[in-house]
Amino acid sequence: MYTCDIKRMEDKIKTFSKFGDAGHGGITRYSLSSEAIQARNEFVKRMEAIGATIETDDMANMYATIAGSDLKAKKIVMASHVDSVKNGGNYDGILGVMGGMEVLETIVVENIPHKHPMTAMIWTNEEGSLYPPAMMSSGVICNDVLPAAIGKKFKLENMLASKSVIDRTTTFGEALEASGFKGDKKNRLNADQYKAMFEIHIEQGPILEDAGNDVGVVTCVLGMFNYRIRLFGQADHAGTTPMHKRQDALFAAAQVLVHLHAEIDKLGRPELVYTTGEIVCHPCVHTVIPDLIDFSIDVRHEDPKVLEQVLAIVKNLETKEWAKCRCEVELAWARDTVYFDKELIAITKEAAEEAGVKHQFINSGAGHDAQFASYMIPTTMIFVVSKDGHSHCEPEFSTPEQCTAGATVMLNAVLKADAK
Amino acid sequence: MYTCDIKRMEDKIKTFSKFGDAGHGGITRYSLSSEAIQARNEFVKRMEAIGATIETDDMANMYATIAGSDLKAKKIVMASHVDSVKNGGNYDGILGVMGGMEVLETIVVENIPHKHPMTAMIWTNEEGSLYPPAMMSSGVICNDVLPAAIGKKFKLENMLASKSVIDRTTTFGEALEASGFKGDKKNRLNADQYKAMFEIHIEQGPILEDAGNDVGVVTCVLGMFNYRIRLFGQADHAGTTPMHKRQDALFAAAQVLVHLHAEIDKLGRPELVYTTGEIVCHPCVHTVIPDLIDFSIDVRHEDPKVLEQVLAIVKNLETKEWAKCRCEVELAWARDTVYFDKELIAITKEAAEEAGVKHQFINSGAGHDAQFASYMIPTTMIFVVSKDGHSHCEPEFSTPEQCTAGATVMLNAVLKADAK
Repeated sequence: MYTCDIKRMEDKIKTFSKFGDAGHGGITRYSLSSEAIQARNEFVKRMEAIGATIETDDMANMYATIAGSDLKAKKIVMASHVDSVKNGGNYDGILGVMGGMEVLETIVVENIPHKHPMTAMIWTNEEGSLYPPAMMSSGVICNDVLPAAIGKKFKLENMLASKSVIDRTTTFGEALEASGFKGDKKNRLNADQYKAMFEIHIEQGPILEDAGNDVGVVTCVLGMFNYRIRLFGQADHAGTTPMHKRQDALFAAAQVLVHLHAEIDKLGRPELVYTTGEIVCHPCVHTVIPDLIDFSIDVRHEDPKVLEQVLAIVKNLETKEWAKCRCEVELAWARDTVYFDKELIAITKEAAEEAGVKHQFINSGAGHDAQFASYMIPTTMIFVVSKDGHSHCEPEFSTPEQCTAGATVMLNAVLKADAK
Repeated sequence: MYTCDIKRMEDKIKTFSKFGDAGHGGITRYSLSSEAIQARNEFVKRMEAIGATIETDDMANMYATIAGSDLKAKKIVMASHVDSVKNGGNYDGILGVMGGMEVLETIVVENIPHKHPMTAMIWTNEEGSLYPPAMMSSGVICNDVLPAAIGKKFKLENMLASKSVIDRTTTFGEALEASGFKGDKKNRLNADQYKAMFEIHIEQGPILEDAGNDVGVVTCVLGMFNYRIRLFGQADHAGTTPMHKRQDALFAAAQVLVHLHAEIDKLGRPELVYTTGEIVCHPCVHTVIPDLIDFSIDVRHEDPKVLEQVLAIVKNLETKEWAKCRCEVELAWARDTVYFDKELIAITKEAAEEAGVKHQFINSGAGHDAQFASYMIPTTMIFVVSKDGHSHCEPEFSTPEQCTAGATVMLNAVLKADAK
């Protein structure tokens, strides 16, 4: 049983938290931005310092590899991302990259014998915050093995044409060319050369903390659907239109949201999560009654039967008018629950037990590149407890001890996979 | 009794509807935009054709004046605006400019004797759609006589610094300089040189149509207040945060909106209007629970006691949490009911009766430059029926007959004012 080094981990956390520091505890580090490139350069510097070979593929995914004793063996990869959401925290994504680096550093410094080459990897543009969609690179690289409905969302040419949500002009493809990190397609993660993939990530929820555990052994990524709900009203002047004549799409949307919460809560599924995070109002002027409200609903649960029950509630919205407004619902996307590799889950649990790290099985409500990778090669994830369950926000926090415990579990799980 | 000419009015409606034509029945014609400049050039061309003298003031307000028989008499002005909201209609504002032009054209063509000089005027930036706030120029020009709380909102230097809501960079002052229409401050509308002001405007509501009338003799502009209501939640990941742990600011806002409608409707005031037209969501990402919702509420009624009852409901929102979110409310602005000049109202009603135009008294729920002008000189307004009560949207419509009836009422009212 080996352990990772807390001092080295603390140093990485401190260093990477500078790249995109927004001045109030968190970062904004969009994929391929100058801040993300600072993080990539730091990754290269530290990995070259331990003798790793650096490669990049055509999506600018980066691979730092140390050799194993068997020159013909497949590689074992540990991967996550360095990009963040706007005003994100110092752990989402980058913890998995730092974890991979820490495992390689420990193997080299402690001179731990291993048969397979070991790779620390950076996925490009996991968040999709500047260039949508999220999980872009794993969507492209695993495209041939993904379910068709998901795969078609990630066609390479469409990804390259994805436009910046800020300037509405620059494409992801242009940013990729300009980044200096675009490499060769032959370097892509693939089933012939890679034996297994691990990803450490913060939990992004309160379950581990509430249970008093430091690490979660992840069994699956929850199935979900995302719908758009639209209310169509009539734009009229706020000062001159009597209340009984109005078709106010925002008042209709408020009624729909309250109704959805009441109806979905009646299903009595405490583990079900559903969210309206995005709302668009037209024309969005204080003196004009809104004629269009368009909002998202994101629903997640492991059991497809539960998702179907919620979907029936959403679809039923169309059967009536809300504050005299017509309602339309439209599927944006959906995915089935993705189960991770049973053998990797088992050795990860063994590793946690042997390392004496407090742990439990957990599922992932969030999407990760690992879920797409799992269609291509055996994959699993390790969660590290998140303080107060916060993520995608600046208060995101896990202690250096907890981060190091996660890396230690991954180190030992990787060594068990190496021995198989 | 004189009448305006429907053919000439139809030609103006057809011509001005081209400037900013958005291709589906309406216009987008922001103040000082190239489309608005086309409309101004057309105004100059037509007014010069009848021998009017054109002047502009330092806010680019335009004045086209024909002489009267008494060279020392004050002028009578008919004013409205050529700018529109985004995706607005072909009548709001421009009808009052076309009405003023039509009255002058009728006077010249019919050689109608009159003592006072007569002016058709364009107010710059009434809508404030590109450079907020609305009623900018009348707010500047009448600043010294406006109630202090309103006046301070329209200080010239702040208006010149108002930034484009589109590029967030160009200021109104820069647009003014670039327009070619900036003139001399001494040309501003003022009490020494102007005897009275009239404004024709579409009703923007359904009251005249429901009553079967073509014209409204406007008695007042309703008092109103505009508040911002803010809900403060906690941003967390949509997939990983159990429902019972959430502080969802958007769900809270939906509850607040439904509550406001229920409580305000209990007051039993059918003539009260209140509107939430603008809503801002942060961070507005489908996978993140919103941590801030900021929305407007605009409330209008003639009686200040009724406005106070609504204000108490709004302020009471702060006393409790909504879906575990804190609520704050803040006054954006308020104005008292503004009553128009009694003598001008009386002669307008006489003119409508004598012209055989179906009419009634009405109040204005919308704000107009006339309400600020009324603090400086005797002022009143004439409303023309709006089809289906629609305005600030492309279906805005009044028939050429109705538009011409409005102009005929103004013509005869102006001649009555001229005779006083």
